[in-house]
Amino acid sequence: MDYIGRQAKLQKALEKNRLDGLLVTHLPNVRYLCGFTGSAAALLVTGDRSLLFTDGRYTEQARAEVQGARVFISRKSSLVAVSLWLTNNGRKHGLKTIGIEAEHLSVAERIRLSRTLKSGFRLRPAPPLVEQARMVKDGEEIELLRAAVNLGASLFDIALQTIRPGVKETEVAAAMEFAARRTGAEGMSFETIIASGPRSALPHGRASQAVIPADGFVVCDFGVILAGYCSDMTRTVYVGHPTKEARQIYEAVREAQRAAVDAIRAGVRLARVDVVARKVLQKKGLAKHFTHSTGHGVGLEIHEAPRVAAGTMELLQPGMVITVEPGVYMPHVGGVRIEDMVVVTEGGCEVLTPTGKELITI
Amino acid sequence: MDYIGRQAKLQKALEKNRLDGLLVTHLPNVRYLCGFTGSAAALLVTGDRSLLFTDGRYTEQARAEVQGARVFISRKSSLVAVSLWLTNNGRKHGLKTIGIEAEHLSVAERIRLSRTLKSGFRLRPAPPLVEQARMVKDGEEIELLRAAVNLGASLFDIALQTIRPGVKETEVAAAMEFAARRTGAEGMSFETIIASGPRSALPHGRASQAVIPADGFVVCDFGVILAGYCSDMTRTVYVGHPTKEARQIYEAVREAQRAAVDAIRAGVRLARVDVVARKVLQKKGLAKHFTHSTGHGVGLEIHEAPRVAAGTMELLQPGMVITVEPGVYMPHVGGVRIEDMVVVTEGGCEVLTPTGKELITI
Repeated sequence: MDYIGRQAKLQKALEKNRLDGLLVTHLPNVRYLCGFTGSAAALLVTGDRSLLFTDGRYTEQARAEVQGARVFISRKSSLVAVSLWLTNNGRKHGLKTIGIEAEHLSVAERIRLSRTLKSGFRLRPAPPLVEQARMVKDGEEIELLRAAVNLGASLFDIALQTIRPGVKETEVAAAMEFAARRTGAEGMSFETIIASGPRSALPHGRASQAVIPADGFVVCDFGVILAGYCSDMTRTVYVGHPTKEARQIYEAVREAQRAAVDAIRAGVRLARVDVVARKVLQKKGLAKHFTHSTGHGVGLEIHEAPRVAAGTMELLQPGMVITVEPGVYMPHVGGVRIEDMVVVTEGGCEVLTPTGKELITI
Repeated sequence: MDYIGRQAKLQKALEKNRLDGLLVTHLPNVRYLCGFTGSAAALLVTGDRSLLFTDGRYTEQARAEVQGARVFISRKSSLVAVSLWLTNNGRKHGLKTIGIEAEHLSVAERIRLSRTLKSGFRLRPAPPLVEQARMVKDGEEIELLRAAVNLGASLFDIALQTIRPGVKETEVAAAMEFAARRTGAEGMSFETIIASGPRSALPHGRASQAVIPADGFVVCDFGVILAGYCSDMTRTVYVGHPTKEARQIYEAVREAQRAAVDAIRAGVRLARVDVVARKVLQKKGLAKHFTHSTGHGVGLEIHEAPRVAAGTMELLQPGMVITVEPGVYMPHVGGVRIEDMVVVTEGGCEVLTPTGKELITI
């Protein structure tokens, strides 16, 4: 990974934002910038250097992983360590205004920072500079995402083998998660959703002890983490014989999903992708049952920038990796969601998820 | 669960702390106080009422789960909804100084709160009032924890059946997690640690693609979530024929663990438990290899108050549920950790973890 290049890019952004440094405390951002994967760290990036603070548990790991940053092992918490370093060395390095990651630093942490930091420094909530950089993936990241997506997609076969009337939702999830582990996933990227029958109308129907009924939709929404990168996909199958109405709902969601994917190319507003999906459902009188936004970025985190939602005025850029996942949910009846991950290109997008989208009945 | 009683207790604490209300944004605290398990919520507890703010995804769930609080469903984020409510209704209810959970509210959230909140209100970082209440478990919670501990402990049998030279650590974790799911766990309470051979010297050796060697310790640290409550246990086994030194290290850790458990009873300082474990290892010249604290509280979260560590001056109270988990780690060689969960009683403690602690060789 081009950690050095990422740090250099951040340094330019610091200059633009009139910051002498950025205190990076969000761990996925730390990993993105210097490669460190431990669970406790603070990375200070200034105009001319990067310093990683962590504790004794991670001495070896930090030495092995960190690139482009000097490693400081401290007995104190990383935040205290960085503020002591600033107090002792900040002035001679010309550091005064330090950006903080306001979305990821708690009020209490900020208070503790201010307490240990000598006067003369200013902590300023910074824009989400690292998140903005992370939106656009480089070639190496896209290959890692592709590998995660492919491993994730292979679990859908397990779901198809396991979903039967009378089987518990958690049993389906268990079989998928077991296969994920066996094939090398570090873990699931979020709690596996297996939502059957009326539960399929819950957009966030985590696999429960409910038994899959003899007739109805089953929404399967799942993903894995592989080499730090997340996958995310949804397929909805039907157990039993779908009514005409059920088929219509399924095809409406499929059409909305296809239309949204077709609308994606560099330069298009993110909000537009959401609108396109919603319009298809509107024509079928189903828009009011599409109760969430159309998608989100995916990378080192399962939900990251950008949002593919009504209000997002930002433009699609080549290298963005987003989900496209419209859904229709009829309370107490059932629901359908279809989700792919795509990578944005100049002229369109490449759908990473290799799985077909025709309605499968079991 | 006695949600009403918990809210009443918090109301007394508010009075004591001269707060007109507490804005509870940490989700385990929200769940503890009113039963809501959704992933987006803010609970405002004032001297005479509780109000839960969430969004449209959780309309039904909130109605089904929430006790003792009025539910507000909002199209905006819960934080914006609560600050609009305060702006419109706060004054007539005599609300002025509102406590915030400083450890769990981000700097950015606080800024957004202040922006929507009319002047005349004061947001004050509050002490961890809910965390303090949560430290002491009631009878119903202890039974839930016992059930989680027993389910968790059953996974150790799976580990024993799976751990063999040549098997990947992740395969052991996969088998355990599969069994957890099948027996009804909602999930694992943290990333399963299977650390074999030299990796057993890593206190946080999450199961990796490493293959279990023919000779060496395997640290197994794992837990489940059942009905919202977490379990946590560690056992260390030996693959092959342990040397005399390996046996001595194991027995030293076992003795330290036993001594720490024996030191537990209501009224004893938490720091004392840590000291007792450390002293045993000191006598054997192993204290410098015991590089973490002796334990932590467990409940709705896998790590919660109190800390069982050198600096903790607080006293053990009946109903506290803590882990006791000394360990010895010899870099590049191997390590041993033994961990039980115990519930503190007046005269001592009850060890919840039912599993034996003699050295098992495979």
